[in-house]
Amino acid sequence: MSAIVHVGAFGHVHLVGAGPGDPDLLTLRAYRLIAEASIVAYDELVSAAILALIPSSAEKIPVGRRKGTCPNAPSIHPDVLARALAGHDIVRLKGGDPMIFGRGGEEAAELAALRIPFSIVPGISAALGAAASTGIPLTHRDAASAVTFATAQLRGGEMRSLLDRVPKEGTVVLYMGLSTLRELASRLILDNHRDASTPVAVVSHATLPDERTVTGTLETIADDVEREALPAPALVIIGDVVAHRSEPASAASVVRNARATRKSA
Amino acid sequence: MSAIVHVGAFGHVHLVGAGPGDPDLLTLRAYRLIAEASIVAYDELVSAAILALIPSSAEKIPVGRRKGTCPNAPSIHPDVLARALAGHDIVRLKGGDPMIFGRGGEEAAELAALRIPFSIVPGISAALGAAASTGIPLTHRDAASAVTFATAQLRGGEMRSLLDRVPKEGTVVLYMGLSTLRELASRLILDNHRDASTPVAVVSHATLPDERTVTGTLETIADDVEREALPAPALVIIGDVVAHRSEPASAASVVRNARATRKSA
Repeated sequence: MSAIVHVGAFGHVHLVGAGPGDPDLLTLRAYRLIAEASIVAYDELVSAAILALIPSSAEKIPVGRRKGTCPNAPSIHPDVLARALAGHDIVRLKGGDPMIFGRGGEEAAELAALRIPFSIVPGISAALGAAASTGIPLTHRDAASAVTFATAQLRGGEMRSLLDRVPKEGTVVLYMGLSTLRELASRLILDNHRDASTPVAVVSHATLPDERTVTGTLETIADDVEREALPAPALVIIGDVVAHRSEPASAASVVRNARATRKSA
Repeated sequence: MSAIVHVGAFGHVHLVGAGPGDPDLLTLRAYRLIAEASIVAYDELVSAAILALIPSSAEKIPVGRRKGTCPNAPSIHPDVLARALAGHDIVRLKGGDPMIFGRGGEEAAELAALRIPFSIVPGISAALGAAASTGIPLTHRDAASAVTFATAQLRGGEMRSLLDRVPKEGTVVLYMGLSTLRELASRLILDNHRDASTPVAVVSHATLPDERTVTGTLETIADDVEREALPAPALVIIGDVVAHRSEPASAASVVRNARATRKSA
């Protein structure tokens, strides 16, 4: 096994966005870093298809998401830290984009405090992946000139109000909102005065072969999703843009197209 | 020149996000589509470095952004339409991501209406590119649990109020906000009751070799940017996350790292 070791110096940590799941949606830089890595740390939001790209000779460190740890605990995993301090370069893969709900900023600050060199590679955040594969735009001339990404986090068992974090107009995308969808939808109607008939789409496993989308309104969506037994992780897209959906050709028909007559022009 | 021609059928239009400018931030799918294209249409937000990847044998169609056209004019360029109707596959490159301020939804709807098959490839939106290269997170445990992307559009000479499109809390990223920065900043203080001392970063030419960042507050930023003569296109990041910036190792130091001692481990 060949590895880059910095003699008498710290290793370089690459905080790398792995995108929504489809390996074809990795950036060129992310792909190269994975293919050439000798140590890769990853959490459970990184898809199996992307993990399959890690060289068999590389050390793989599953760091999990460490739920239930103290809120002030370091964001960076101790095994990642130990290897960087010992002079090893590390690729830290994160689902989606490191700087949007990925704790990339927190990890970067911890690395900077220890003077461990790092770089950040952006990734296709789940909302962008879901928009492209479903054909639901996030902004639209006639429907939304702004889009807000928010989480549906529970803090100490209680949901933080969306009121101050979500504007009156424009598209709202909720990350990890499936388990709290019923309460979220009613809050948006009651607290944020969003119309009960506002269109909503819930996209499960966006960009993966088993992607599924359920559409409804703020009033119906919790029941719609329950009836369809939609699995997590899923993304919730709320706003008039959902009514402007134009479904792209399916992957199967794209393959058919690629097999179309080739001619010399 | 070899081209894919669908006999008696329409061509396939790929609406492809070209990302923020650095070719390394193209997705694998976008890169392959560009490298194998026989017709590529692009607007002026696509960087020269990415245009250089188009095969020399391919037809290149600069479609511009067609400012000043009627607001109800079709979004898709007539030359793109004509070639798709004639059976040619086309790669339509768009700066950033097609579904965030990229009119991808509008073009998709027009293609769907004509039964022209299309697909959408997401791209790294400018905000994600700028966050990664500057080290300014868009969300942060201690600073923001939501991020809003908005435009600073002028409609009929008057700026649309930001009040309904921007929430009270959380990060705000303004696309194409450089020319209207002074008015925007004062609106955010007066209309949206954002604190005058809220940190702001303006990132010009994000991810490109001549990237520059100016930081200040809502109160000072217009003067700061004027003094530094920052060129467009630029992105405005507003919120406490700006104070959580951790600057990544410069590209130069990353190259130095890559040249570090290679050892057998």
